Amino acid sequence: MVDFTCPLPAPATDFITLAHGGGGRMMHNLLERCVIAAFGQQPLASRHDGSVLSVGQARIAFTTDSYVVHPLFFPGGDIGKLAVTGTVNDLAMCGARPLALSAGLILEEGLPIATLERVVASMAATAQAASVAIVTGDTKVVDRGKGDGIFINTAGVGVVEHAPLIAPSSVRPGDAILLSGDVGRHGVAIMAVREGLQFQTSLTSDCALLADPVMALLTAGIEVHCLRDLTRGGLATTLIEIAESSQLHIEVKERAIAVADDVAGACEVLGLDPLYLANEGRFVAFVPDAQSDGALATLRAHPVSAHAVRIGSVGAVSDKMVTLKSRIGTQRILDMHSGEQLPRIC
Amino acid sequence: MVDFTCPLPAPATDFITLAHGGGGRMMHNLLERCVIAAFGQQPLASRHDGSVLSVGQARIAFTTDSYVVHPLFFPGGDIGKLAVTGTVNDLAMCGARPLALSAGLILEEGLPIATLERVVASMAATAQAASVAIVTGDTKVVDRGKGDGIFINTAGVGVVEHAPLIAPSSVRPGDAILLSGDVGRHGVAIMAVREGLQFQTSLTSDCALLADPVMALLTAGIEVHCLRDLTRGGLATTLIEIAESSQLHIEVKERAIAVADDVAGACEVLGLDPLYLANEGRFVAFVPDAQSDGALATLRAHPVSAHAVRIGSVGAVSDKMVTLKSRIGTQRILDMHSGEQLPRIC
Repeated sequence: MVDFTCPLPAPATDFITLAHGGGGRMMHNLLERCVIAAFGQQPLASRHDGSVLSVGQARIAFTTDSYVVHPLFFPGGDIGKLAVTGTVNDLAMCGARPLALSAGLILEEGLPIATLERVVASMAATAQAASVAIVTGDTKVVDRGKGDGIFINTAGVGVVEHAPLIAPSSVRPGDAILLSGDVGRHGVAIMAVREGLQFQTSLTSDCALLADPVMALLTAGIEVHCLRDLTRGGLATTLIEIAESSQLHIEVKERAIAVADDVAGACEVLGLDPLYLANEGRFVAFVPDAQSDGALATLRAHPVSAHAVRIGSVGAVSDKMVTLKSRIGTQRILDMHSGEQLPRIC
Repeated sequence: MVDFTCPLPAPATDFITLAHGGGGRMMHNLLERCVIAAFGQQPLASRHDGSVLSVGQARIAFTTDSYVVHPLFFPGGDIGKLAVTGTVNDLAMCGARPLALSAGLILEEGLPIATLERVVASMAATAQAASVAIVTGDTKVVDRGKGDGIFINTAGVGVVEHAPLIAPSSVRPGDAILLSGDVGRHGVAIMAVREGLQFQTSLTSDCALLADPVMALLTAGIEVHCLRDLTRGGLATTLIEIAESSQLHIEVKERAIAVADDVAGACEVLGLDPLYLANEGRFVAFVPDAQSDGALATLRAHPVSAHAVRIGSVGAVSDKMVTLKSRIGTQRILDMHSGEQLPRIC
């Protein structure tokens, strides 16, 4: 098996590689070089999960994601559920109440229509569960061998009803860092089905809607500084991105970060690091230290974040680094990986 | 050459074919059967270019399109220009002032980064020309042979500042039908480069931004009932869709519909019908008969619609049909084609 986890610098390349899509350093560099340089927009450059726009007196959040997960169906979800969940969650991470989604389907010639029906039904069911309407769409078909069954893009619009800006730039020294649950389930679930691996337990993706606990935090008056769901690149990459954007130091405790036994076991066998594995139903919240306990109580009232814990704090040093205090008390710096441990995870 | 133009009923099929992406009857049936049935939303079922949502006191239009055009570069444009133009135009067709776009890129492993840079630069230049910001984005990479260079999804948000609903349901008997220019250029330009055909003249796509003439119509106080750009399926399919949605009769005069000599010549050689060819910079406007001349004058003041003409009228009969009065005075019914003359045109 190819090891994608090596944190060495990526080789210079003039062609797109799978690692460019992994959410790691190579993707960041590609985006810096190509996309952000060209579009040159402040909202895009801030690298948040979405952008907040003013429309009259209202503020709306706007976000997009394409889904190319392989395989289309996996334990705990499918590309349709993922496409709706992911975009609803990105809106939630902007502090927005999800309002409407678009759906852009790219179908490969030869796809069984029954597969399309299954995926679309899953999108519809997930949208209904999220109380969000899919209001506009588009369907394209590409030749056999020029696609891979189904790719889905969902864009989302949400309403931002609470005043403070939720973004990496709002993170402050002393903030508590809360994690909504255990990590690594989605990555290992995809890996297991893709590689035909059998684990003793039936491990499923954590794919789940996160808008409810987020809205609950805001309604409870928690002064949320930053939110981020832990998709490509996992918890570690997310924390590194926020440390870099906020220009602050982040310290987390390994002991506080839950990893299910079967996830830990699979990671050991496969040589994967659960801190870098993608999740589809987990997020971190940065809140003032004084509101940490209240925020945890609010999160724990929701099934999807019932096991929320405080995993660390933001320091005052401007070194833009993330340090992990291990179980045995040593400290190590978390570095962004070059590519992704698992390509096409979402 | 395979003839995609035959208007016979499509054969029953349980697999996706290229014809399902063509904008014709097969695509309509697929959307009815799979997508609209599942999502079941009124806005989606109305089959307009976008959806209009209320946010506080404001109204916003929301639309999406994926672009899979082959080849990526063609005379008069490229996939990047097309992706921005198409979504800006869809917002304009909702009567909305374009506000912000998202960009979702699906890259194939092995794509030269220089190609990506060229496409992204074209997106940025077109967005700047349209005075619209690309505010949020996403990049995914798929394995070699599971994509085709670059696919782009753009979603768009615009602000609807004028009161009346612009939609097929607003079309009224007696409405004048205005066409903004000649038809068929985009389809023939793509066909020429794809098939390696050489025409005597240098035919280019009509790919162009349409928001300015639309905003001018609204600002001039024209009571615009419906707008539609003439992409997949061309002028004929657009008129048929509007006749079906509005449940009215549409009559147009062939003599009034301009087709450039080189487009007509290419169509004759290739057995294509210019009325069904995709355009990327042409639209129809349905306006009250009494405002027809004023609307034409407004349109003609803009270079992109300098050759706007009235091509027909909406009748009072509820037969949901489109009839074309030919140059020699005979009438024929325009029927929706089964698939598309040219797959992957946008």
